Amino acid sequence: MKQYTLVALAFGIVAAGPAYAVTGRDIAMQGTDNVPACSSCHGMKGEGQADLVSARLAGLDAGYILRQLAGFADGTRKNDTMQPVASALTEAERKAVASYYATLPIPKAAGAPGEASKAAAGAVLGRNGDWSRGIPGCGQCHGADGSGVGTLVPRLAGQSVDYIEAQFEAWRTGARKDDPMGLMAGIARKLDKAEIASVAAYYAAAPNVPAIPSGKMAAKAGVTKTGTFTPPPESAIPDNEFGKMVRLGENVFRDTQHYAAQYVGNTLTCQNCHLDGGRMADSAPLWAAFGSYPAYRSKNKHVNTYAERIQGCFRYSMNGDVPPLGSETLLALEAYSFFLAKGAPVGVSMPGRGYPALKKPAKPFDYARGEKVYAKSCALCHGANGEGQKSADGEQVFPALWGVQSFNWGAGMGNIKNAAAFIKANMPFSQAATLSNQDAWDVAVFIDSHDRPQDPRFTGSVAETREKFHNAATWMYGRAVNGAVLGEHSPPSGRRH
Amino acid sequence: MKQYTLVALAFGIVAAGPAYAVTGRDIAMQGTDNVPACSSCHGMKGEGQADLVSARLAGLDAGYILRQLAGFADGTRKNDTMQPVASALTEAERKAVASYYATLPIPKAAGAPGEASKAAAGAVLGRNGDWSRGIPGCGQCHGADGSGVGTLVPRLAGQSVDYIEAQFEAWRTGARKDDPMGLMAGIARKLDKAEIASVAAYYAAAPNVPAIPSGKMAAKAGVTKTGTFTPPPESAIPDNEFGKMVRLGENVFRDTQHYAAQYVGNTLTCQNCHLDGGRMADSAPLWAAFGSYPAYRSKNKHVNTYAERIQGCFRYSMNGDVPPLGSETLLALEAYSFFLAKGAPVGVSMPGRGYPALKKPAKPFDYARGEKVYAKSCALCHGANGEGQKSADGEQVFPALWGVQSFNWGAGMGNIKNAAAFIKANMPFSQAATLSNQDAWDVAVFIDSHDRPQDPRFTGSVAETREKFHNAATWMYGRAVNGAVLGEHSPPSGRRH
Repeated sequence: MKQYTLVALAFGIVAAGPAYAVTGRDIAMQGTDNVPACSSCHGMKGEGQADLVSARLAGLDAGYILRQLAGFADGTRKNDTMQPVASALTEAERKAVASYYATLPIPKAAGAPGEASKAAAGAVLGRNGDWSRGIPGCGQCHGADGSGVGTLVPRLAGQSVDYIEAQFEAWRTGARKDDPMGLMAGIARKLDKAEIASVAAYYAAAPNVPAIPSGKMAAKAGVTKTGTFTPPPESAIPDNEFGKMVRLGENVFRDTQHYAAQYVGNTLTCQNCHLDGGRMADSAPLWAAFGSYPAYRSKNKHVNTYAERIQGCFRYSMNGDVPPLGSETLLALEAYSFFLAKGAPVGVSMPGRGYPALKKPAKPFDYARGEKVYAKSCALCHGANGEGQKSADGEQVFPALWGVQSFNWGAGMGNIKNAAAFIKANMPFSQAATLSNQDAWDVAVFIDSHDRPQDPRFTGSVAETREKFHNAATWMYGRAVNGAVLGEHSPPSGRRH
Repeated sequence: MKQYTLVALAFGIVAAGPAYAVTGRDIAMQGTDNVPACSSCHGMKGEGQADLVSARLAGLDAGYILRQLAGFADGTRKNDTMQPVASALTEAERKAVASYYATLPIPKAAGAPGEASKAAAGAVLGRNGDWSRGIPGCGQCHGADGSGVGTLVPRLAGQSVDYIEAQFEAWRTGARKDDPMGLMAGIARKLDKAEIASVAAYYAAAPNVPAIPSGKMAAKAGVTKTGTFTPPPESAIPDNEFGKMVRLGENVFRDTQHYAAQYVGNTLTCQNCHLDGGRMADSAPLWAAFGSYPAYRSKNKHVNTYAERIQGCFRYSMNGDVPPLGSETLLALEAYSFFLAKGAPVGVSMPGRGYPALKKPAKPFDYARGEKVYAKSCALCHGANGEGQKSADGEQVFPALWGVQSFNWGAGMGNIKNAAAFIKANMPFSQAATLSNQDAWDVAVFIDSHDRPQDPRFTGSVAETREKFHNAATWMYGRAVNGAVLGEHSPPSGRRH
């Protein structure tokens, strides 16, 4: 490795010249005085070299590459080859080379031959995870197509199998520890080698966004166990007309933006609030909801069918238009819920239903403390301004918690009581129940003290709307926060085209 | 008792005169040469006398009275007082006196004091029966208001408690055996004294048609057990908004003519095909149906919600208009089904669901044999022409099996396979499974070889409609019976105003 340094020093004089002349392309293709050409290991097109276990750099986010260089330099990412290289690059050189690789076209990856069945299992794990062990789907952070999110969550699609496997090994052993909140280390320690191989095979093939695989494709995926009730595995979805409807429902549920676009007014998906595709206990699982309707709801003061209950989600949580009764969207969601509820008793409140009510905290919930919790534990994914984050391909990966792209004031999550319960039981993502009750309440009040689209039932008066629909200590709507009354300046509710 | 004869003989000369001069009123109020005045025991207004345990005759059907007189005379109804009286009346006198009493106004009955709670229990038994022991509700044969049906099924409303109890005792011991098909003997042997007292108290009070009693009223009613699954008792319907919707659903289900009049095109009710208010196993119970949807149906070639499945009942079996999705009628039926299904597993086919498939008979099913079975075992209630029977108050009690007031050609019951299965498992009413398989198939083909309203999906051609919807050996639609092709002359389908 030291030879690089020596080589760099040897070329020192030759390469002397004005710093501005050194482009990212120059560094990549020829190196600098102090470092060899990146292309010698990462390929002429930044495509990576599987036999060297070097990363594909083409198309990676520039900020992500910069973070890696910094990590190599300071040792938070241990790599004997890269450490001296990263250390020898100036700040300007790092930026130049990072920008260069970020703009390179992403080479078309070929799936490794004979990896198809492995990749099929990886597709399910990549999309769904295995929440019985607290493992989210890779795509739930890296984007469904693995295109990466921001500077923290890299593109997976097209990386080599060997490279991906090597990173898991590095997370697992602690050789790599630059993952925020220890997210990757936690996951790497839960996956076994076969599972890692399957997701590596899947992402190495640069897959398209996967729809719900057919019953046969999914047959090798394991059963997802949640709480006290085990919904059927995806492999139990039959290959018939009913199964098609169930699969459509799952697609709507997991990828609401694409499969129910006409009814959605923000960038959320159903499974933002119902984790694991509606399978997870204590995250309002569909298997517990399905058999609970028809039921009277105080929210609208009449008996609601399950279909009407789902309409409520679209109207408030999705800030959208209501799918009509009889529409395929509602039917598909009903069919999917019914499928998940197989064997669950009708009319019996099941353990794991909804979000487990959280005791009031010792201290009154507090905006300022909540702001700190948010910065520490939430902003990483949801953004400093609650706006969430999109993948490199523009797909919303981390949901917006307030603002125009979030749920409106009519949604149940706008009630601190519900938000705190959800957060405690499910957040941070894949690190459930790590916040204290106090933290959960505090961060809930912080989140629910930000503006969002108006309540669709708005009467024209915030005070009256609060009185009618938000008249509880756990609703911030209609109360003054930071000098403005929430609801007074809310953007209009409903879908904007 | 002999004194009557002596008295009659003593008046013989006085009463001599032309036979045509003797009116029913004369016989009732003064007697004849041979019999004393009926009023001496039955009261001046035919109101009956509780202390003599004599029947209220006012308003009874004339044919029914005539049948009783014949029964007293020939001993099929044993009564030492009435035997000589009935024997001494000429045929003309019997007719006259029967007609006289039939036209008398029905006196307003006063409920016995202190009988209210007994009557409340009787209301439930009278309306619902106890199908766990094969006991239909009294009102299911005598009319919901106990006003009686035709010449065979007498008015109960307003008879005295003592008289009703005495009749049960007579059925039980066999002292009275003029009940067709042994129907009353079978029921009398199943009821205990307290139950008999309760229905006697209920009908003695000449009740109005009962709606579903409130939870509190029904609290004393027993649990109805059906098959392998026990739906909750009516007493479990909560006294809240949800409970109101459940009760409305039960009312719609049991008395569809009144509670869903706008959607019904014939004189049927839901529980004609789903006995015991949808509770009975092997009679398409609601508790097994609710958790079976959404499901794909080959009938309409798509996945149906439970609401759409109910719509099908209205369109075909009720030959009516479809209650819109979101209508209170559908919601109420869903809520009632949900209530009955409490604890039943979602998506699991439960024993007792639908009608148990009946093996094909040894001999091909046969219209002529079926006609004989019908005459022997069905016509009593359903009428010689399949028209069913109404109560004295005009309410349809026994459903029409063909013709304009029956289900249309699109209904599942028009398929012999389904009809045979239903008949074997449930008919004759309260004497289930007494027909042989061969008889059930034969009578099914007889019933389903009669015309009924057109299939709502009629394409304009019977042959084509058969090809599309009835192309099986178990459909008679489109086939020639008695010289006419079924469907060619069917009255139009749908609700007629």
